[in-house]
Amino acid sequence: MDIATRVWNHKWKIDPIVRSLIDTDFYKLLMCQSVFRNRLDTQVTFSLINRSSDVPLAKLIDEGELREQLDHIRSLSLTRGESTWLRGNTFYGKRQMFRPDFMEWFEALRLPPYHLERVGDQYELTFEGNWPEVMLWEIPALAVLMELRGRAVLNGMGRFELQVLYARAATKLWEKVEKLRTNPGLRIADFGTRRRHSFLWQDWCVQAMIEGLGDSFVGTSNCLIAKNRDLEAIGTNAHELPMVYAALAEDDAALAQAPYDVLADWHEEHDGNLRIILPDTYGTEGFLNRAPDWLAGWTGIRIDSGDPAQGAETAIRWWKARGEDPSKKLVIFSDGLDEDRILDLYEQFAGRVRVSFGWGTLLTNDFRGLAPDDGLAPFSLVCKAVSANGRPTVKLSDNPNKAMGPKDEIARYKRVFEVGRQVAQEVVV
Amino acid sequence: MDIATRVWNHKWKIDPIVRSLIDTDFYKLLMCQSVFRNRLDTQVTFSLINRSSDVPLAKLIDEGELREQLDHIRSLSLTRGESTWLRGNTFYGKRQMFRPDFMEWFEALRLPPYHLERVGDQYELTFEGNWPEVMLWEIPALAVLMELRGRAVLNGMGRFELQVLYARAATKLWEKVEKLRTNPGLRIADFGTRRRHSFLWQDWCVQAMIEGLGDSFVGTSNCLIAKNRDLEAIGTNAHELPMVYAALAEDDAALAQAPYDVLADWHEEHDGNLRIILPDTYGTEGFLNRAPDWLAGWTGIRIDSGDPAQGAETAIRWWKARGEDPSKKLVIFSDGLDEDRILDLYEQFAGRVRVSFGWGTLLTNDFRGLAPDDGLAPFSLVCKAVSANGRPTVKLSDNPNKAMGPKDEIARYKRVFEVGRQVAQEVVV
Repeated sequence: MDIATRVWNHKWKIDPIVRSLIDTDFYKLLMCQSVFRNRLDTQVTFSLINRSSDVPLAKLIDEGELREQLDHIRSLSLTRGESTWLRGNTFYGKRQMFRPDFMEWFEALRLPPYHLERVGDQYELTFEGNWPEVMLWEIPALAVLMELRGRAVLNGMGRFELQVLYARAATKLWEKVEKLRTNPGLRIADFGTRRRHSFLWQDWCVQAMIEGLGDSFVGTSNCLIAKNRDLEAIGTNAHELPMVYAALAEDDAALAQAPYDVLADWHEEHDGNLRIILPDTYGTEGFLNRAPDWLAGWTGIRIDSGDPAQGAETAIRWWKARGEDPSKKLVIFSDGLDEDRILDLYEQFAGRVRVSFGWGTLLTNDFRGLAPDDGLAPFSLVCKAVSANGRPTVKLSDNPNKAMGPKDEIARYKRVFEVGRQVAQEVVV
Repeated sequence: MDIATRVWNHKWKIDPIVRSLIDTDFYKLLMCQSVFRNRLDTQVTFSLINRSSDVPLAKLIDEGELREQLDHIRSLSLTRGESTWLRGNTFYGKRQMFRPDFMEWFEALRLPPYHLERVGDQYELTFEGNWPEVMLWEIPALAVLMELRGRAVLNGMGRFELQVLYARAATKLWEKVEKLRTNPGLRIADFGTRRRHSFLWQDWCVQAMIEGLGDSFVGTSNCLIAKNRDLEAIGTNAHELPMVYAALAEDDAALAQAPYDVLADWHEEHDGNLRIILPDTYGTEGFLNRAPDWLAGWTGIRIDSGDPAQGAETAIRWWKARGEDPSKKLVIFSDGLDEDRILDLYEQFAGRVRVSFGWGTLLTNDFRGLAPDDGLAPFSLVCKAVSANGRPTVKLSDNPNKAMGPKDEIARYKRVFEVGRQVAQEVVV
């Protein structure tokens, strides 16, 4: 019996990191459907950006191996079982979340070509084409680079050294879980796909959360793991929507309006728990102050940059000013979380609002301190829309260290969105 | 394929702890052959002794399960492969260590019946019969009780709690290995079969030592693991030989001579690295002072009780007094070792003698601090010859806490062997 398994394993030319098109974040598929419907023909460029320039990706990762992994992803298509799961599942209590025309398109989809070039010690990796196709590269591209970097470090380790490495990482995670489960009111989801240590490790982390946290673990952003482990797939929307909508704006007035256009489209398509505002793309404060009243009726808000407690206080003030009851509103924290911050924020806001957490990199990739020279510590890698129909995109966020785009455009956006002085926060991951 | 594995696993009525007659210490087989040759018809009783009375074995372990495990051991016989390994292997550079008549006897052997009774919170477990048969119960009986006690504690734990438990134990062991490998001169063997956490865990520990310690790991006392992992099987002789020989002595003069009779028989059968003196059964000091000169020519000594450094110094003085060069002699430390003591003793004696270590319980069962109420910490369980041809045995050792036998006989032995005041040492395991 083991012979068959071994022979089967040897048939793989490579050990593929991403083996499914739904090994991606759920919100990507939600956004993809929205884009497919509203902005199908927008031409976008997504680009890899390594914010941790001290991690020399091109020195660590062999270009040939990287190409093999990316080529493998291009060979993937939706399996029958995956399609059935997407078509038949209930998401946030809603059946047929994905419409038949979108599913037909998705079933026929292969990811578009990539462009890869080594520049110094880094890789330039870009994807160009129709927005709904290109956007699906983001998560698998990040997962591939994170895992290949990990493999490069793991390659030099012995079998038992490896076992102990994972033993240490498992112990570390379990100690976090033990801390968190002292508080049964917590609601936490796995948001750690993009910068995970590896697929198998993420899957292990999710299983540990299931056993350790019980009802406090509400689901995972990873569709494949949600499917395999019979969990709720979690997610709503991300910065790429306002970024691309904003880049496409013809003038400053349209630019100022763009983030609300995104949510108007979203409002038409979704209700309930999917109506979550992501306010920080061009500064939370101004975004909320200028927001139309119907937005105050949405279910909640996601805090993804800046000081999280301050962001939540801003939202609470805003809801009150608009005559809404904050205690009915959902606040989802999703930026740079670890167990202590989760517990602190919960302590601070439970009861005042409904609190939920999207726990990312430090859930699925906390290998800090576990390898020589900290070679497995997670680092800050992103893959973003950098242009739309030939125009550059801009992101400001509530943390100047997370801002991106051409300098003059950043200045213009700051003016249009009336963004004042911002407090810089260290970007851990 | 997995279906077949599962069906196969379900065919086992129990999950057997000991699955092979050679899942035992190598020295048991060496001694068994010696006894088979020299004292075949001696009737002995071996008895379980739990020196840790705070561990209520009969409350923790179900009597039915214990019987099933012991019955399973009685169903075992030497397999063809095991027999071939024993007959064909080279032990300590010697071929045909086990003589054909012994092998024929061993191949036909089934272990004799046991007597099990619950007395309060402890079990009375005894084995009676011919010495060479009964003696082979010691190691599997201990391993069964240690592992069943562990299983009782593990039963209440979840799947991931278990994974993390083993992750912590693995990390703990690896940290010991990392400490030890700073010193490439070390020579360490696994002596941890009898009080191991479990067979699989011992096997894991051995593999970790192979990878982590390289040439510093010289082998294991466990024959089955030695066979499976292609390692040197390590061991010489134990206290049961002088204990039974002494019990059989007709008078005080014969008693005083008994420990030397043991070694005379051994001297006839073995040479080289198997000529290792175990001097502490009735006090090291007196034993060496009264020893015949030919014993000073033996290869080395094993220090198994008392203060180990003092024991080694005693041996060094004795060799010098008998005109031997201590730097050519082997000193094997095997009592209550952990990594720090190993490093200390090595530091102290390397160069002055050849140093080697038999690392036992704290190698294969250091689960201290890993379970609630320290429920998995190793404890001091032994299985000893308590009588021979109807006469009680006595052990004094260099630590009064390890003494055993009837009070009046202990007094008589102390007189005959001129044992003075001894310093008590805590018995950890």
